[in-house]
Amino acid sequence: MSMKKPTTIKIPKGFFFSTAEAAIKKPGRKDFGLIFSKVESAVAGTFTTNTVKAAPVRICRQKIRSGRGQAIVVNSGNANACTGRQGLKDARDIVSTVSDQLGISSSLTYICSTGVIGALLPMQRIIPAVGPLAGGIGKASLEDIAGAIMTTDTFPKMASRQIKINNRQCIMAGVCKGAGMIAPNMATMLCFIITDIAVEKKALHASLKSAVNKSFNRITIDGDMSTNDTALIMANGLAGNQPLTGSSTDFSVFQKALDELTYELSKLIVRDGEGATKLVEILIKNAHTDAEAQKAALAIANSSLVKTAIYGNDANWGRIMAALGYSKAKFDPDKTDIFFNRTQVVKKGVMNNRDKEASEAIKTKELKITADLHAGSASAKVLTCDLTEDYIRINAEYRT
Amino acid sequence: MSMKKPTTIKIPKGFFFSTAEAAIKKPGRKDFGLIFSKVESAVAGTFTTNTVKAAPVRICRQKIRSGRGQAIVVNSGNANACTGRQGLKDARDIVSTVSDQLGISSSLTYICSTGVIGALLPMQRIIPAVGPLAGGIGKASLEDIAGAIMTTDTFPKMASRQIKINNRQCIMAGVCKGAGMIAPNMATMLCFIITDIAVEKKALHASLKSAVNKSFNRITIDGDMSTNDTALIMANGLAGNQPLTGSSTDFSVFQKALDELTYELSKLIVRDGEGATKLVEILIKNAHTDAEAQKAALAIANSSLVKTAIYGNDANWGRIMAALGYSKAKFDPDKTDIFFNRTQVVKKGVMNNRDKEASEAIKTKELKITADLHAGSASAKVLTCDLTEDYIRINAEYRT
Repeated sequence: MSMKKPTTIKIPKGFFFSTAEAAIKKPGRKDFGLIFSKVESAVAGTFTTNTVKAAPVRICRQKIRSGRGQAIVVNSGNANACTGRQGLKDARDIVSTVSDQLGISSSLTYICSTGVIGALLPMQRIIPAVGPLAGGIGKASLEDIAGAIMTTDTFPKMASRQIKINNRQCIMAGVCKGAGMIAPNMATMLCFIITDIAVEKKALHASLKSAVNKSFNRITIDGDMSTNDTALIMANGLAGNQPLTGSSTDFSVFQKALDELTYELSKLIVRDGEGATKLVEILIKNAHTDAEAQKAALAIANSSLVKTAIYGNDANWGRIMAALGYSKAKFDPDKTDIFFNRTQVVKKGVMNNRDKEASEAIKTKELKITADLHAGSASAKVLTCDLTEDYIRINAEYRT
Repeated sequence: MSMKKPTTIKIPKGFFFSTAEAAIKKPGRKDFGLIFSKVESAVAGTFTTNTVKAAPVRICRQKIRSGRGQAIVVNSGNANACTGRQGLKDARDIVSTVSDQLGISSSLTYICSTGVIGALLPMQRIIPAVGPLAGGIGKASLEDIAGAIMTTDTFPKMASRQIKINNRQCIMAGVCKGAGMIAPNMATMLCFIITDIAVEKKALHASLKSAVNKSFNRITIDGDMSTNDTALIMANGLAGNQPLTGSSTDFSVFQKALDELTYELSKLIVRDGEGATKLVEILIKNAHTDAEAQKAALAIANSSLVKTAIYGNDANWGRIMAALGYSKAKFDPDKTDIFFNRTQVVKKGVMNNRDKEASEAIKTKELKITADLHAGSASAKVLTCDLTEDYIRINAEYRT
């Protein structure tokens, strides 16, 4: 799927970037990145709920308790997952080497990895690359970071927002990567958000958690949840505003900007789903409970049969009814309405004789499927994509 | 995947078959079938648990309460699901027309449908085909029935067993269809089992339920559960044995034969999974509970990433660890062992350096993946297949 040209990305005050080549999976690209704030920052994070957690995730989860940080080092090509004690040691060695070069405490450096699971990091190539990486601070752009963390992504993913807090111009920017193993919660998804807004630790965490729940936790490509999912936010306060707490007047402005930013980034991930040709929004209306609304939306979004029908431009609503039926949401099939964009294809559980309009609707590159269950007043929205031969090709050949 | 040539199928006493062309989806094949016992039989059935139940399923669930029957009429090409009141009326009209022609009570005729969801049956072609169908009783074979119920199946699926009950030779035979929308519980799966063994109604139901739980409910192709799944067994008693009850000496002989028969049929379904090139058995050992063992097995079996890796001959055990990790089974990743056939690829959560042997193992057409969680003593086995470009092609083009 082709990329939508991003609008110019604004960078918050005091953040600098660097990338280097560590030839982790293979030589020829910058696969090692560093985000650095010139001052210590508040940091918050959310992580995969997979029982199998990669070494960098285990380390970040410990560090994040302090709520403080100044640098994030990241590599693609190797997830450093299922690598046991050696994997933990390797991640700690990278953190301490980077911190030494930057002249900051190890406790302020976070680490993330993405790529193949189960292989040890090539430390003999990574450690020598730390010098050039730390030495190159300020020589790379946020787009370079977005490029360094790509795996099967086909385009770099960035977004930014400019907002006023306490009458000061503030900036919030983010990069992320996705492409495969994307499912609630979070995905083989890395997301780094940086801002010059001053935010108290507790408010920062609550705000990130809320934003992630409405964005990265509501997207699915293949239903597979990764071992490495991480979203980190660094707020260095250089905009000079009064530090925001949950009760600040402008907190809602901050939350809204973060919600928008993470939603925009999560949409880019789905748009770039492995092999995807279409972006699909699943909206469940009038479910009995929120949990059931989400189950129903995910059942449709993860159905291989629904996704292949969409790919094939087949307005096969029967597969949607079947997915709703096994979703464990309570509803009466005979009351259910289904829409493809604005075309109602199912009325009270049976076809509405709109085949021609439905066939047109399903050809759109951005399809919205709405199922109204008439069982309550809860709703849920999930973003997904179609399932194509290219998904198979990419994943059958990914490691070899 | 090529078919294994079935051994000769034996037919129990007193059962007769017929097929006819009703051109339900398109002309040119016999898509309408009838199984008839010359005497009234005990009948038991298990049905989809999907909230959206096709009209024939709703009708069979009512009929089955009597535990009696004599005929099964079945069509492919149209599932008669999501067809509202008209769909129920159509199914009842077929049942009564067939019963009239056969000269039996409507209550003794069961009906099953498989195919596209959401379209009304072409009654103007079906009703005229009932005459030839009922008139042709005895002119078709069980293999013709297996052929008539195929949708995207590439070969007819049959099996039979000969056993001794009360020193009498008895026969049990079955046909089924599957191919897509196969997931616990049951699948777009139709299965008809016929036997001349006399079995009491209650014992027949318990026996079928137990057999289905160990076979059709343990297979998955795409994780999609259909609206039409039905397994019916007719036992006409013409072998002349003392009717079996749960406490009969020979009941275990009957149960074992039924278990074997349904397992063999379910294996044929997975072997013929849409686009599949490999049959994959997932075995979870030493899980904490039975339910967790099954969750873990299904998470692996339904993972698109695991299935594409197997297709690509990539011994990518990291994706198996990731699937275990999100399966909701409780286990310690650092204690987990994983085997591809007999090759141990993961030892205590990390790689076991058997890449060469693992690459050989994964090339086999019948792959066994074992995960030993070392968390308890429960186990579960699930059959699945790989995920290929052909699955996408078949399902993107199925309706058009």
